[in-house]
Amino acid sequence: MTAPFAGASAAPSPAPAPAPAADREPVTVLGLGPIGTALTDALLRAGHPVTVWNRTAAKAADVAARGARTAPTAAAALAASPVAVVALADYAALASVLSGVDLGGRTLVNLASGTPAEAAAASADATARGAAYLDGAIMVPPHVIGGPDSVVLYSGPGAVFDAHREVLDALGGPRHLGADPGLAVLQNTALLGLMYATVTGFLHAAALTGTAGVRVEEFADLAVGWFLPSVVHPIITAAAPDVDRGRFPGAQGTLEMNRTALEHVIGAGDERGIDSSLPRALADLAARAAARGHGGDNFMSVLDPLRSPEA
Amino acid sequence: MTAPFAGASAAPSPAPAPAPAADREPVTVLGLGPIGTALTDALLRAGHPVTVWNRTAAKAADVAARGARTAPTAAAALAASPVAVVALADYAALASVLSGVDLGGRTLVNLASGTPAEAAAASADATARGAAYLDGAIMVPPHVIGGPDSVVLYSGPGAVFDAHREVLDALGGPRHLGADPGLAVLQNTALLGLMYATVTGFLHAAALTGTAGVRVEEFADLAVGWFLPSVVHPIITAAAPDVDRGRFPGAQGTLEMNRTALEHVIGAGDERGIDSSLPRALADLAARAAARGHGGDNFMSVLDPLRSPEA
Repeated sequence: MTAPFAGASAAPSPAPAPAPAADREPVTVLGLGPIGTALTDALLRAGHPVTVWNRTAAKAADVAARGARTAPTAAAALAASPVAVVALADYAALASVLSGVDLGGRTLVNLASGTPAEAAAASADATARGAAYLDGAIMVPPHVIGGPDSVVLYSGPGAVFDAHREVLDALGGPRHLGADPGLAVLQNTALLGLMYATVTGFLHAAALTGTAGVRVEEFADLAVGWFLPSVVHPIITAAAPDVDRGRFPGAQGTLEMNRTALEHVIGAGDERGIDSSLPRALADLAARAAARGHGGDNFMSVLDPLRSPEA
Repeated sequence: MTAPFAGASAAPSPAPAPAPAADREPVTVLGLGPIGTALTDALLRAGHPVTVWNRTAAKAADVAARGARTAPTAAAALAASPVAVVALADYAALASVLSGVDLGGRTLVNLASGTPAEAAAASADATARGAAYLDGAIMVPPHVIGGPDSVVLYSGPGAVFDAHREVLDALGGPRHLGADPGLAVLQNTALLGLMYATVTGFLHAAALTGTAGVRVEEFADLAVGWFLPSVVHPIITAAAPDVDRGRFPGAQGTLEMNRTALEHVIGAGDERGIDSSLPRALADLAARAAARGHGGDNFMSVLDPLRSPEA
């Protein structure tokens, strides 16, 4: 589950929910933080009967007023519907809440945050107790859940994904990544790492241009409005098939040339008195790739020391 | 000047140049590496009479066959045209080549690589010697120069930019950033830093998903085809005006929540045996922002320790 990210726009008030439709599968939602509340509202809007449970019962009042039924215990909530969407804080909370509860015949769609190994363990535990298990990662802020721009990654048995597709459609933008239950958390975690690298790279660049009085909004227009989508993304997309074949052709620019450019980034930062720890970390990785003989390859060869730090 | 980057597609053969047009301003090009050669071909295609000089004269043979005149010395090349486009390796090479040469009445458009302080010094030197000076940074690979997707950043006096606009148009996509001669190099350097952060962030993410057998091409489709343009760029664009006002509102997600997510990125990498030095560097910056009291602000507050590392 993605951490709600800095800078997202404010959440609108949820639209009133229609009365539950007779042909919609009943769904239970465990956990009513900002995410669980948004999931509940999305399900209510799609006409699903929804039963909710939260450790602090008072948090259920708002969604109850919008049509959700409240259950006094997690066990009662799980008994109320064939499928339960779990929006607890983490896998430890999931294990604690499910402890001693009969899961036979239920389907769990777990959207908790954690690591691939935790997802695999949760899947194994649920399956051993007679439940079907799907792991998921919400890739959008709470107010986007259920809307046309919602994206949720899922992993686990394709048959479970297909059986509850209508419920997953109500949450918005379901993408099934594969049967390995850890895949959704793994790809979500990888995307978060990419997000922090890109946003911090942007902030470093904004700090550098800011020393000459360039406004952040002005630099964002150049960097995000043009440079990343028009220059950087096509480079990555074009190089990816070669990377999959283990090929890093340097004919259009070598790692050594890019290491020189990185030294200019560090030099300009030092000249202007800003922090250069990010480009230094990038230069260190590039140096390790060069030390493995990739100096004449292209910059994508930095994948080598990233993949196998102890080679 | 941008370092030609890994993964760019191969250069097509230059189209045959038309005969020089009588109404086009004559241009001199100093330096005939891949960039200088591409600049020369773009000018020839636009009908400019072009005089070239390169320290190793043999490199001029190809562009001479396509219609460029060769000059035996840099001084002779500079005397041949009112404006000279400089594509030497760096500012030191520029200073060396111009040493003792009469620059009176000439306009220099310098596209060499370096730092803002070097650009400022080159501008001051040229101006003191009676020349007009424009500094520039080519943002695209050589084969794109002069084409519809070319972008070249310029800084220096607006009057100089306007006076030679036809020449700059022939090189493609001229953008004037302001009168400070260091601005083009500064913004180019900042964008390069952003590029390396984003590409390395992508490679780290690809290394992580690769441990589950996800192909790089498949992950690029998710990361570059959807996540960066649809999720990350709007976050940056939406936050920029607040950042310019020194505001980092945490209502939609705090730095502390994002620090927890970064720990998951590091944890997943450690679990899978890949290198986590990049997310660790990002987490360190976030920790320094938190130590300055930004824990309840949003992630953009990492700009604070980037801007003033010694605060």
